[in-house]
Amino acid sequence: MTDTAVAPPSARTRIRRIAENADYQRSTLHAIIDAAYVCHIAFVDDKGTHNIPTACWREGEHLYIHGSNGGRLLKLLAGGTQACVAITHVDGLVLARSAFNHSMNYRSAVIYGSFERVTEDAAKRAALDAFMDKLAPGRNAEIRRGNDKEFAATTVMRIALDEAVCKLRSGPPIDDAEDMGIPVWTGVLPLVQTQAAPVEDAPGPGDVPAYVRQWQGSVTV
Amino acid sequence: MTDTAVAPPSARTRIRRIAENADYQRSTLHAIIDAAYVCHIAFVDDKGTHNIPTACWREGEHLYIHGSNGGRLLKLLAGGTQACVAITHVDGLVLARSAFNHSMNYRSAVIYGSFERVTEDAAKRAALDAFMDKLAPGRNAEIRRGNDKEFAATTVMRIALDEAVCKLRSGPPIDDAEDMGIPVWTGVLPLVQTQAAPVEDAPGPGDVPAYVRQWQGSVTV
Repeated sequence: MTDTAVAPPSARTRIRRIAENADYQRSTLHAIIDAAYVCHIAFVDDKGTHNIPTACWREGEHLYIHGSNGGRLLKLLAGGTQACVAITHVDGLVLARSAFNHSMNYRSAVIYGSFERVTEDAAKRAALDAFMDKLAPGRNAEIRRGNDKEFAATTVMRIALDEAVCKLRSGPPIDDAEDMGIPVWTGVLPLVQTQAAPVEDAPGPGDVPAYVRQWQGSVTV
Repeated sequence: MTDTAVAPPSARTRIRRIAENADYQRSTLHAIIDAAYVCHIAFVDDKGTHNIPTACWREGEHLYIHGSNGGRLLKLLAGGTQACVAITHVDGLVLARSAFNHSMNYRSAVIYGSFERVTEDAAKRAALDAFMDKLAPGRNAEIRRGNDKEFAATTVMRIALDEAVCKLRSGPPIDDAEDMGIPVWTGVLPLVQTQAAPVEDAPGPGDVPAYVRQWQGSVTV
């Protein structure tokens, strides 16, 4: 698929503040979701407005979540309640010459819509397999797959990437012209999510799996 | 102050799923906020439920945010609307012997309440100074501070840490007894937010500031 806009900005996704940082391209949205292990889901119930973190992954034009059938989040979302999903990666602190022009570099995505249950068994299994493939490619062939009881106890839900917006900032600080003579260090202090040395619990047979061997030192973009 | 619970769990903060991962201690909540540069704020307006990322910092028993007076988020929050703030740090992927027992290590905080404007000038300046001190300790003395116009154009808001809950998981995978014979690598693939080499825009006079010199290689806990 060519890189197209998610959709024309809606009343909810049109960025007003620093509008040049807005990005409506599918490729940008996909990359931000794919770099995330967790999203935050906002929704309302009779006790108020909630904001719950949960693991997420993407397939095509949907963001997926999963959990126990009994969980409050999934039960409420299954009712079709309107939700708003947010993901943010902080990439650095931007140090300018004036306090006012300090900023952060970041990549964020906000998705509006309703979650739907993935009810069909094959689709649900495929979604859970895709999640494992994101975490540890190939591991599905090494572990015990979910049995019928576990599978039945798990709810998989998804939200379409139809009404969404990304906002990003990168690059150096931007100072006011009249501040350029102020003698102070300026630049970016980068923040990077990195993959530290695996902590082995049991070695397993034979070679260490590639997704473990290749973990350390990799940068999760 | 001794480490006390934030408050008895409310109907909104009582954790039901995997309740042993809940933590209501102030020290835990403080540490999770202090390790974050950004939070996600859920709130409702006439267009629906929103979830907006924004920079945050903590002083005492409040979480602070700031922004332009004209920003939608701050204008709506200033109306006293109920908000829910979420922060999550993902610490690793937990690889177990069965798909079902895979997990993540994480530290999350969810705070319920309403934001209030910091209107008093000295308190507002002190809050903005505290934010800079979090980003780059000592930098307030080196840069141009906010002038009257910039100061007037900036809104600072805060939410009390009164109704809040943390949820954390750490440590190795926990497998079912009947799965212990499955021959597969198990353990944790850690994720760490690290501070990469500063990207200098202008060197400033004299020595590189300590907060720049000491940046690289540090781990943001």
